[in-house]
Amino acid sequence: MGEIATLRCVTCGVEYDPTRTEYTCPSCGPRRGTLEVLYDYDRLRRTLHPSSFAETGLPSMWRYEALLPIEDRRFIQPLRVGWTPLYAFPELARELRLAALHVKDDGQNPTASYKDRASSIVVIKAQEKRKGVVTCASTGNAASSLAGFAASTALETVIFVPERAPEAKVAQLLVYGARVFLVRGSYDVAYDLAAEAATAFGWYNRSAAVNPYLVEGKKTGALEIAEQLAWNPPHVVLVGVGDGSVVSGLCKGFDELVRLGWLEHAPRVIGVQAEGSAAIARASAAYRGRAVAIEDGEARTVADSICVGKPRDIVKAVTYVARNGGEFVTVSDAEILDAIVTLARRTGVFAEPAGAASFAGLRKLAAAGTLEGKTAAVVVSGNGLKDVASPRAIIGAPIVVEPSLKEIERHL
Amino acid sequence: MGEIATLRCVTCGVEYDPTRTEYTCPSCGPRRGTLEVLYDYDRLRRTLHPSSFAETGLPSMWRYEALLPIEDRRFIQPLRVGWTPLYAFPELARELRLAALHVKDDGQNPTASYKDRASSIVVIKAQEKRKGVVTCASTGNAASSLAGFAASTALETVIFVPERAPEAKVAQLLVYGARVFLVRGSYDVAYDLAAEAATAFGWYNRSAAVNPYLVEGKKTGALEIAEQLAWNPPHVVLVGVGDGSVVSGLCKGFDELVRLGWLEHAPRVIGVQAEGSAAIARASAAYRGRAVAIEDGEARTVADSICVGKPRDIVKAVTYVARNGGEFVTVSDAEILDAIVTLARRTGVFAEPAGAASFAGLRKLAAAGTLEGKTAAVVVSGNGLKDVASPRAIIGAPIVVEPSLKEIERHL
Repeated sequence: MGEIATLRCVTCGVEYDPTRTEYTCPSCGPRRGTLEVLYDYDRLRRTLHPSSFAETGLPSMWRYEALLPIEDRRFIQPLRVGWTPLYAFPELARELRLAALHVKDDGQNPTASYKDRASSIVVIKAQEKRKGVVTCASTGNAASSLAGFAASTALETVIFVPERAPEAKVAQLLVYGARVFLVRGSYDVAYDLAAEAATAFGWYNRSAAVNPYLVEGKKTGALEIAEQLAWNPPHVVLVGVGDGSVVSGLCKGFDELVRLGWLEHAPRVIGVQAEGSAAIARASAAYRGRAVAIEDGEARTVADSICVGKPRDIVKAVTYVARNGGEFVTVSDAEILDAIVTLARRTGVFAEPAGAASFAGLRKLAAAGTLEGKTAAVVVSGNGLKDVASPRAIIGAPIVVEPSLKEIERHL
Repeated sequence: MGEIATLRCVTCGVEYDPTRTEYTCPSCGPRRGTLEVLYDYDRLRRTLHPSSFAETGLPSMWRYEALLPIEDRRFIQPLRVGWTPLYAFPELARELRLAALHVKDDGQNPTASYKDRASSIVVIKAQEKRKGVVTCASTGNAASSLAGFAASTALETVIFVPERAPEAKVAQLLVYGARVFLVRGSYDVAYDLAAEAATAFGWYNRSAAVNPYLVEGKKTGALEIAEQLAWNPPHVVLVGVGDGSVVSGLCKGFDELVRLGWLEHAPRVIGVQAEGSAAIARASAAYRGRAVAIEDGEARTVADSICVGKPRDIVKAVTYVARNGGEFVTVSDAEILDAIVTLARRTGVFAEPAGAASFAGLRKLAAAGTLEGKTAAVVVSGNGLKDVASPRAIIGAPIVVEPSLKEIERHL
């Protein structure tokens, strides 16, 4: 386990004792006071080396246990989370004038999304903290992930989802036995209700930004990309951005590898937002090193998992990406849908809309010529089976036929 | 690669040269003449040992390349197929009065089903045979799997699905770019049409029983269970049965491990059929060592992936399970749906109906007391996201609420 040295406020830099502070910085308040988990990197540098992880023999993110904020390993669930495949597609890379293209398929996680990395950690923290109930607000993936990872434990799960959450995602979490509140309103409304309920009833809150341990799970994607490429990571890594936790996690993961001396510099992390849900991209464009805050806003995109008007991890996302030297780009819904189909047909990886946003962003940057000759990785954050309805608009329908060879011949 | 010694007819035992014979035994005909792939086991015994596979370092079924019928490894797709997790659930085992319970989650394959193991092989064989089009009939999983594995190659895919195939499965294969014929009629009608079309247009046919290489991919689940348990496999292994290919694959995999001298005896393989689709179970009960044939029949079950009136791999399934010392059991649709929910809530593994049939069968046998003190493994052959509609009937609905803490309190 990685012994936590401190919880530090991303905005004011004040450090807190993790045994006494749960969620956010008391002086900066919930809109700015996002906490980050820091370890004793000097000690880790002495005790770990790049081959430490392979030596665990674990085909999951638990190979990085030494860098994760876990105190009681008995609570680690049996589910295989992380260590998802990273595929190379040289021909597609050539067409995009890249030196290499890697696709990380996080749709192969236990509940089929990147969120499993965070849920796995949070379910352990809830048990370490002797909580009986864990809760979150979610557009869907975080919820089903939390419900799935809590399933094999004694924890109860209470989930708040916005009313537009796709049916498949809601069904998945009901199957897992979660108590589900479908809240009349947006994700943002559901989020506030979850936080209120957690405080009122003493539940452990998994929601983004409030919970400092989420990003620790999410950083493991970066650790894996680096290790899977033998510590020669690509120039750029792209990922879809909603609340901002995944992009923050990738930045933190690469940053820790630089701190540990195993990478000379971090890959540039590029967050991809839907044009209709681009609050973090806008805040990033306006960022001049001063404090960022969570702001109200509206969002609308086909990519439900990154449809967030009021992104909660904006403080980390903007400051981490700035520190990383990365950037944000936006893509249209049409570009996202087209990316789903192209990715599936060229690679065999079927992504949900939010999961294909990364590839849509890559194509946009490649078309603009800014990535020529570079190596790139895109993270597919969720399985296409999570939302089969969205691409249906652009893929056409099957050909209905009577069972006759003649009829087949006519259609060829 | 495993050099194929011969293709042998399961019914008459006559051997054929794999470079000259494609699908079935000419003298027994398509109803009885299923072929099996045999290797030079003496040579393999000399060149391989149980640690050979770990030494490949491959976290996929390609660790078993030495036992697979591949001639040109350049055609191996990048997708990570197989080497799916095998989880232990000691508490659930105790409740079922088993000594151990393992769950193999094949829903974590690239297209989220066990079928990927077979499609991966068949796509390679099609390329080795210089075919331009690969086809199959499928209730859904085999089709999307074939389309997904062909996506990163130059092969075109033509799929015949029965009209009742779940929408999510059809959408998945349209996204992959397959040409899809929705055939008015049952799976059995679609199957015959695919075979006719393959013959008429020179396509390579992936359909069950016709293609001898399917079972080779499917045997890898058995190899993995044995290796993942350090060559001490459980007493029984259960799997849902539709066409009969997966259960045949498991029998063949364990049988080859016995031939190679790495297992003293094979686990008993127990095929689980839905009561409304139990042709193989019936044929097995009537089996007295004489030739089995493919017969017409009707089927009806909620578990669409094993809803097969005229199972095509019945010849192998009945003879292999008899030789293995295994058996078939049947379960009701209600037992299957209940198994989905119990499995998800106790283990975190969300199975489609056909995938949960194995667990339903286990509970039935455990309740009858026939497995007391035994060790068991159940294969979950497909991800629950493939069919979220079916369990919805028994999981209730989310609670719709206004965003108010008072309203939440009222529901607790």
